[in-house]
Amino acid sequence: MSSAKSPPVSPLAPSAVPELPPLPGVRIATAQAGIRYSGRTDVLYVDLAPGTRAAGVFTRSKCPSAPVDWCREALAHGGARAVVVNSGNANAFTGRLGREAVAKTVQIAAQAAGCSDREVYVASTGVIGEPLPAERFEGVLADCAARATDGPSAWAEAARAIMTTDTFPKLATRTAEIDGVRVTINGIAKGAGMIAPDMATMLAFVFTDAALPQAALQALLTAGTKTSFNCVTVDGDTSTSDTLLLFATAKAGNAEIADAADPRLAGFTAALDSLLIELAQLVAKDGEGARKFVTVRVTGAESDASAHKIAMSIANSPLVKTAVAGEDANWGRVVMAVGKAGEPADRDRLAIWFGDVRVAVQGARDPDYSEDATSAVMREPEIEIRVDLGLGAGQARVWTCDLTKAYIEINGDYRS
Amino acid sequence: MSSAKSPPVSPLAPSAVPELPPLPGVRIATAQAGIRYSGRTDVLYVDLAPGTRAAGVFTRSKCPSAPVDWCREALAHGGARAVVVNSGNANAFTGRLGREAVAKTVQIAAQAAGCSDREVYVASTGVIGEPLPAERFEGVLADCAARATDGPSAWAEAARAIMTTDTFPKLATRTAEIDGVRVTINGIAKGAGMIAPDMATMLAFVFTDAALPQAALQALLTAGTKTSFNCVTVDGDTSTSDTLLLFATAKAGNAEIADAADPRLAGFTAALDSLLIELAQLVAKDGEGARKFVTVRVTGAESDASAHKIAMSIANSPLVKTAVAGEDANWGRVVMAVGKAGEPADRDRLAIWFGDVRVAVQGARDPDYSEDATSAVMREPEIEIRVDLGLGAGQARVWTCDLTKAYIEINGDYRS
Repeated sequence: MSSAKSPPVSPLAPSAVPELPPLPGVRIATAQAGIRYSGRTDVLYVDLAPGTRAAGVFTRSKCPSAPVDWCREALAHGGARAVVVNSGNANAFTGRLGREAVAKTVQIAAQAAGCSDREVYVASTGVIGEPLPAERFEGVLADCAARATDGPSAWAEAARAIMTTDTFPKLATRTAEIDGVRVTINGIAKGAGMIAPDMATMLAFVFTDAALPQAALQALLTAGTKTSFNCVTVDGDTSTSDTLLLFATAKAGNAEIADAADPRLAGFTAALDSLLIELAQLVAKDGEGARKFVTVRVTGAESDASAHKIAMSIANSPLVKTAVAGEDANWGRVVMAVGKAGEPADRDRLAIWFGDVRVAVQGARDPDYSEDATSAVMREPEIEIRVDLGLGAGQARVWTCDLTKAYIEINGDYRS
Repeated sequence: MSSAKSPPVSPLAPSAVPELPPLPGVRIATAQAGIRYSGRTDVLYVDLAPGTRAAGVFTRSKCPSAPVDWCREALAHGGARAVVVNSGNANAFTGRLGREAVAKTVQIAAQAAGCSDREVYVASTGVIGEPLPAERFEGVLADCAARATDGPSAWAEAARAIMTTDTFPKLATRTAEIDGVRVTINGIAKGAGMIAPDMATMLAFVFTDAALPQAALQALLTAGTKTSFNCVTVDGDTSTSDTLLLFATAKAGNAEIADAADPRLAGFTAALDSLLIELAQLVAKDGEGARKFVTVRVTGAESDASAHKIAMSIANSPLVKTAVAGEDANWGRVVMAVGKAGEPADRDRLAIWFGDVRVAVQGARDPDYSEDATSAVMREPEIEIRVDLGLGAGQARVWTCDLTKAYIEINGDYRS
């Protein structure tokens, strides 16, 4: 069993851990099951009130983890009574043993919650390829069910229990009104920290007391993911386990609205989208070795999809990311990344900004470009790179972090 | 003007610089034009005998450099009498000034060679976004034309003149027979070294005395590129300037064969392909900060194209590359890279090898996997990662290098 390592907290972490309000229908407990870590919690148990509906989006990996397979199946039933998340072991690429570990976990949790197997959602994060010792959950989950609470520190404890090598817990909350009824949305996430070998998972869990039918819930989550978690990248490496689940307990007492596009849901949709974006940004801010948070905006593309591909090409380019780490406004590398995206682009119409400083225009260096002004922008902890393609109205915005030597240390040096 | 930096020679460099044989119809000169470097050659001039034909493949970037635009147009004419390559300035993203610099370079070279503009090929490598001072070629190219030679050190000098931050010159030679007539193929290349800001270009120039019509020459080059330069990646960042040119002087005296697929060209094709692979591998071996040369082989895919995408996903994964740098046989990250490629894959059929050691089989860790044997493989300077998908007969092989802190230092730390 390895003890938890304590990397320095990211300089981009929020100054304080927020205290989230209680959310009717949701009770939380955490525990130490000793899956891999010692001296810290590694299990999150969430009790959901009867009538809770679930929605989810998952990794597009062709080699998903066993828990992802399970959640996809469970969603077909739509009801949810319990969530079990463990850190330290991803239960990914574990073959038959992985499926058996999920079945065992679900069985123990269903007994603790007094529900059917299909109402239990599971997620695992940590080492890939090691069998998950699900028997460690025996007794632990029943105890969690007995202790589960909506107390003031519950959400922060939940966010801490699912951390692997994250350097800070990630939480966000919003309120909105549906037809005059106030509803709350709470969310937690973990990022792709990888100090120990094989650790790679983005997990996020969002809860609301709003009453929403499952189809609307899924539609809102799918749409919200497009502008949040699908717009964040640390190193372009898609995990086998990426999981985002949204649960609605219906305790707020609003009248159900079936159509996700109904204008009466506009406030809720905006709050959900905003919360998802905050969680996604927190993941990028805790990217391995990150010292700078980078927003890449692309405008003037032929379509939004084209803009997104170009923005991701920039955000994933090791040369752009090392330039940001070096505080170098290296727009030549941005041009390179635009060019390699394979999307329509006209070299002679490109304009590029770092922060508010336009460094290139019409396919060449901006004659009014000030080295001093640009250097000042690059020294900031948060930097925006903007590219205008001058072709159409397509636009996109994605978030990433810089690529530093600490990333290599975290991911490559642990055996040296 | 910056002086040339001297990074340590890659540990993967060949033990000696090969001496290439003279190639009838090709004469070489190098010079110091002071484009950016001082104290080293930065211009390569190649004189080609009348009757020489050209073929070329170029970057797929949507923002290609001005020299790439020029070469694409020149190829439509097919004849070639001179090649001018400069290092220190890529003449990329320089707008109208870039096109004017190419025109000026071509004009000076055509006068020196006594040929038409369309028979001159140009390539530039170095800083992006700075205007190329083409007037520096005045006098220099005429002098080169007068001095051009096929002497024993000419090819090594040519390979050195086009280096930017490469740590060793890259040369290769082959011989073959066409219909009983012996022909020679010589090639030089430069890699994607980036110690100074913005430097990013892969250039390669291949010459043969074989007589081949242009259509066949182009067909052979296009086919050969697929299994060589298109299978090499250092950081997945496609340059604005990638250029591979093949010139055939027809001095060997073989009878022309029009069809590239003619069996009488089999020996020549094999020699050309082999030379292109050697040059491409030399580029990966001089990847920025490289300490290990990695061959990624994918078998059992649904198609060769699918296998290639999966192999590139593995070879470009920062997590796989840092694991190799850390001498860690981290097959979980290989699974991740297979999964994110988006190609057909079945987790439960995957098998993975590091060198000869099978570490995973049927979707789980190989029960006979030996940590000691794998560690021995990972300590070698050259490592093969093999993945069998168990789905079909598709296969691919690509080459890359590890990702080390030196890559970050080279690309990010120069302003710190």
